[in-house]
Amino acid sequence: MESQVKRFPAAALESKVAAALRQAGASEESLAAAVRAMLHASMVGVDSHGVRLTEHYCQMLAGGRLNKNPQLSVDIRAAGSAMVHGDDGLGHYAAYKAVEVGIDLAQKAGVGAVGISHSSHLGAAGAYALAGAEQGYVTFATTNTDSMVALFDGAARFHGTNPLAFAAPVPDSKPWLLDMATSSIPMNRVLLHRSLGLELPEGVAADAHGVATTDPDRADMLLPLGGADYGYKGAALAGVATLFSALLTGTTLDSDFIPMYGGDDISTPRNMGHFVLVVDPNKFVGRDMFGMMITRYLSSLRAAPVRPGGERVMAPGDREWETVAQREEQGVPVDPDTERFLGL
Amino acid sequence: MESQVKRFPAAALESKVAAALRQAGASEESLAAAVRAMLHASMVGVDSHGVRLTEHYCQMLAGGRLNKNPQLSVDIRAAGSAMVHGDDGLGHYAAYKAVEVGIDLAQKAGVGAVGISHSSHLGAAGAYALAGAEQGYVTFATTNTDSMVALFDGAARFHGTNPLAFAAPVPDSKPWLLDMATSSIPMNRVLLHRSLGLELPEGVAADAHGVATTDPDRADMLLPLGGADYGYKGAALAGVATLFSALLTGTTLDSDFIPMYGGDDISTPRNMGHFVLVVDPNKFVGRDMFGMMITRYLSSLRAAPVRPGGERVMAPGDREWETVAQREEQGVPVDPDTERFLGL
Repeated sequence: MESQVKRFPAAALESKVAAALRQAGASEESLAAAVRAMLHASMVGVDSHGVRLTEHYCQMLAGGRLNKNPQLSVDIRAAGSAMVHGDDGLGHYAAYKAVEVGIDLAQKAGVGAVGISHSSHLGAAGAYALAGAEQGYVTFATTNTDSMVALFDGAARFHGTNPLAFAAPVPDSKPWLLDMATSSIPMNRVLLHRSLGLELPEGVAADAHGVATTDPDRADMLLPLGGADYGYKGAALAGVATLFSALLTGTTLDSDFIPMYGGDDISTPRNMGHFVLVVDPNKFVGRDMFGMMITRYLSSLRAAPVRPGGERVMAPGDREWETVAQREEQGVPVDPDTERFLGL
Repeated sequence: MESQVKRFPAAALESKVAAALRQAGASEESLAAAVRAMLHASMVGVDSHGVRLTEHYCQMLAGGRLNKNPQLSVDIRAAGSAMVHGDDGLGHYAAYKAVEVGIDLAQKAGVGAVGISHSSHLGAAGAYALAGAEQGYVTFATTNTDSMVALFDGAARFHGTNPLAFAAPVPDSKPWLLDMATSSIPMNRVLLHRSLGLELPEGVAADAHGVATTDPDRADMLLPLGGADYGYKGAALAGVATLFSALLTGTTLDSDFIPMYGGDDISTPRNMGHFVLVVDPNKFVGRDMFGMMITRYLSSLRAAPVRPGGERVMAPGDREWETVAQREEQGVPVDPDTERFLGL
C-alpha cells in the first residue's frame, strides 16, 4: 500500500491541514485542537484518524453539522467532576479542553471526571489520554461512535468500535499508551482487505445476517473483541464506552447517531458525548514512587521471554513510539485523495 | 459436573462459611465482608471465587498470611481520592470499605477514586462494582493477581488474570454488571478440561514455551483476551488492572506475589493492591435522566436481532441474574471437598 502513497514531513502537513480548516471557516482555537489530534494520529500510525479526515471535517464545517466558532462552556459540578459543552464544534477542541479541566480538578481533588456533551468526532481517543499523561497524570478517555459492531450473538450493528484509551506517565520516557477499539479490527480494515482481495481473520466480521465471515465482500458488520467464543467481553467493553460517554452525559446512543459518513444530513449536529478521567499519582502512592514502580514494571515486561516465532514483547505504546520516530525521519504517508485535497 | 455435587440453600452456606471463618479466628467485621463476597460469587455462578475458597482463607488465617483482626485505616488524600490500608486482613473487608469511602467521596466530589494497599485476595471483583451500583453509583473495581497469563508474543506468565469489573444502576432492575478476566478463560477452566479430557478452544492457553495449545495437559499458562491475533489488547487491559491496582497504590506487581496457592510461605502477607472508582450520575446528567438513558439503552440491546444459531442477546449481568434466580430456587452447587470442609 505504502508504495502508492507519498510521504510528507509533519510540519508541512500541519500547516496544510490548518490552512484547509481555516479556509473552511473554523476558529483558530478549534482548528488548532483538530490539527493537534490529527497529527497525533498520523504520527503514531493511526492513519484512519489522521490528516485524511481533514476533507471530511471541512465538509461538515461547510454543511453546518460542525459549528465553525464554538464557544465551549465548562460547568464544574463538584470538586472532582465537570461537564464540558462542546457547542457542536470540532470534537477535538472539546476533548482537549476536558483534559485540561480534568487536570485542574485532579490537582486538587486527586481525580477529575469530565463528561463532554454536544461534541462531534474527536479523532483518536488516545490523543486525549496521552495529553493527560504528558502532563504527569494517569488518564482515561473514551467515546461512543456510530453503530458498526454486532453484539455477542447479535445480527445487527449495535455499538460503535468504541475506543478505550489509557495512558500513564513514565519518567524520562514516552508514556505508556493504550488506544484500543473494542472490536478486533476497525471497519476500514475490512475495506482494505476488500480492495486487496484478501481474506479476513476468523471471528472479526460478520455478514448482513450476523454470521461470521472471512470474506471481506460479504462482511457487513464487525464482531466484538474476543471473537466467536469470548465476544461477550468485547461487547461489554463497548458498553463501558457507551456508559461513560453517552449514558452519563445524556448524549446520543451509538445506534441513534446521524451517520458520520454517507448520510444525507450534514447540517444537524450529532450531540456526541465523550468522557475523560484524570488521576493524580501524587494523591496515591506519590509521583516519585509511581515513576519508580512503572519503570520497573515496564523493564520487567520488555525483558519477558519471547515465544518461538514471536517477534518481541512490547509495552502498550512501544509500537506507536517507533512509528513516530520512523515518521519523524521519513515523513507521514498520505493517500492520493488527501494529498490532492491538501494541495501537497 | 453438577451431577457429582449437591446443592445447598444460600442461607445454610452463609452460616457455615461464617462459622468456619469465625473458628479460624477472623474478626466479625472482616469475616462478614468475606462471607458477603463469597456468597455473591456463588450466587452469580462464579464458583471458583465462591464458598469453595473458605478452606483456603481459613488456612491463610491459621498460617498468618491473613491478619485475623485487621484494623482498616482510611487516608483521605483529597476531595475525591483516598487510600485504604487493609492491615493484611481478608481482602474483601478492605475492598468493601473502599466502596463505602468511594461513595462518600463521590457524593460530594462527584467521583471517588480509592486505592487499597496491604490487602489480600478479594474474591470476585464484581462484588465491589455491584456494591456501588446497588447504591446508585457507576462503579469500577479492579485488582492485579498472581502471574498466570503470557504477554502478547510472550513465553512466560506475566500478568494475572486481572479482572476489570464495572457496574451501573438500572431503575427497577438489577444493575448492569460486567466482571471480566482479561484472559479469555480462567486457569481453573484449564484444570476442568484436563480432568474431563476435553480439548481447549484455540488461542486461550499456551504450553511452557509460550506456544499456543489446545491440549489441557500441555497448557502451562493462559493467553490474553484477543487470542493469537489481537491478544495485545487483552495484555494491555491486564496492564490497566496492574496500573491502577499496583502502580498507583505502590503494592506488589503480579510477578512478585508470593503464590496464592501451593507455595511454602503462608505466613507472609502479600501486600495486594486494588482500586475502586465511584462516579455519581447526579453530578453528570442527573440520576433520573441517567436512569431513563440506561433503561432505553438496555431495552434496545435486549431487543437486538439474534444471529442464526445464536441463543439471544444479553446485557452484561443478565446471565448472572438468571443464575441467581435459579440458585435461589434450587440452591448453590458445592463440590464434595468444600461440602466436607464446611460440614454441610
